[in-house]
Amino acid sequence: MSSRFPVMEIFGPTIQGEGMVIGQKTMFVRTAGCDYQCAWCDSAFTWDGTGKEDIRMLTAEEIAAELREIGGTTHVTISGGNPALLPHLNELIDRLHEQGITVALETQGSLWKNWFLQIDELTLSPKPPSSGMTTDWSQLDAIVAQLTEHERAFSLKVVVFDEADLQYAVTVHERYKQVPFYLQAGNDDVIQEDTSVLLNRLIERYKWLVDMVIASSALTNVRVLPQLHAWLWGNKRGK
Amino acid sequence: MSSRFPVMEIFGPTIQGEGMVIGQKTMFVRTAGCDYQCAWCDSAFTWDGTGKEDIRMLTAEEIAAELREIGGTTHVTISGGNPALLPHLNELIDRLHEQGITVALETQGSLWKNWFLQIDELTLSPKPPSSGMTTDWSQLDAIVAQLTEHERAFSLKVVVFDEADLQYAVTVHERYKQVPFYLQAGNDDVIQEDTSVLLNRLIERYKWLVDMVIASSALTNVRVLPQLHAWLWGNKRGK
Repeated sequence: MSSRFPVMEIFGPTIQGEGMVIGQKTMFVRTAGCDYQCAWCDSAFTWDGTGKEDIRMLTAEEIAAELREIGGTTHVTISGGNPALLPHLNELIDRLHEQGITVALETQGSLWKNWFLQIDELTLSPKPPSSGMTTDWSQLDAIVAQLTEHERAFSLKVVVFDEADLQYAVTVHERYKQVPFYLQAGNDDVIQEDTSVLLNRLIERYKWLVDMVIASSALTNVRVLPQLHAWLWGNKRGK
Repeated sequence: MSSRFPVMEIFGPTIQGEGMVIGQKTMFVRTAGCDYQCAWCDSAFTWDGTGKEDIRMLTAEEIAAELREIGGTTHVTISGGNPALLPHLNELIDRLHEQGITVALETQGSLWKNWFLQIDELTLSPKPPSSGMTTDWSQLDAIVAQLTEHERAFSLKVVVFDEADLQYAVTVHERYKQVPFYLQAGNDDVIQEDTSVLLNRLIERYKWLVDMVIASSALTNVRVLPQLHAWLWGNKRGK
């Protein structure tokens, strides 16, 4: 029997606004449910109950059919919530690969699944102190070791809101020095509805982070990025 | 005897604002001289005579020494002008590699040099109709073939100002379908000194390009990016 996955939303084509494939034309599949509850989560509706009526239990084939229907790109990004909660997600990945689709996925690195090895572009995004979450380093070590051993294309990404987060980013980067490393300026105003007010705030936060990284002797070979989707569309969902 | 290279400016560390290594902490070496004269060139001082008093004729070792001095990153971006005019640039690339530095370079794909094969991240950026330049397709074909044959990490990037440029981008992408392809929103106001006026204009232009790519059935597996440095610092030189 085919597994069913809790799907919160399917949308696109749009562009990936952040991380290792920033700018990529892609469709999104957002799964519901998370083992974390980050203080500043920009997709809290996936786990705080407010979006629960939007959740649909879909098979891999049903998801793939919706993606074929909307079309326009050969790239799909799976996000959450934390999709690493789903043991049989390989069924979806296989189905998408059969359709010639490249699959990117983001997860926080708190849980391992064997299907990580099938993801074309995997982002591990451990959460800094401002999130209120605690990193399980032995778990993250094991995940990085598995991906490295299998020579997978993956990256680490840390969202930074303040100096404590920046120090955390340094710790992550130094622990996994050979892994491509991304710093991302956090959006500290996820309820702002005025897009131009938000834009000025986001640019100020990005500039701050760029300046901090430029001045840092510990962060010499890293990439610093904003969230382009928030710059373009503010806090709107489904863009 | 060591070769001397016409260096217009050396600056950094800053971030790479565009293309395949967008966000990368890097230092820049900008060489003088170009075989093109693009209508909207944002570095026209490298070839139109206005910057000629800033040109210094430096050896690879002198350039490397200045980069060691400013430090802070293990990544260097060589830009121009067109650095592909310089036959012995391998001397600089070798020297930087000896220092453990990763080297990125951008050129328009009008000229081949054997040292292209030594570049870690090479961007070919053929120029669209709005530039006023004409693409030598047989030359670009030969360059792409060489890089492909040698399995080099390279990408194509087309700057887009209008619909004719977008059509040109489709032509380039379809001709070299297997090469990672980037579209970049052009800055059509390179003399604007008010950074906030410029920012609104750049975001509007980027949004336009994103919308065009989202709607395009010919551009399915591509990346669309802005120039982050212009968003942060406007039209200032040396950032």
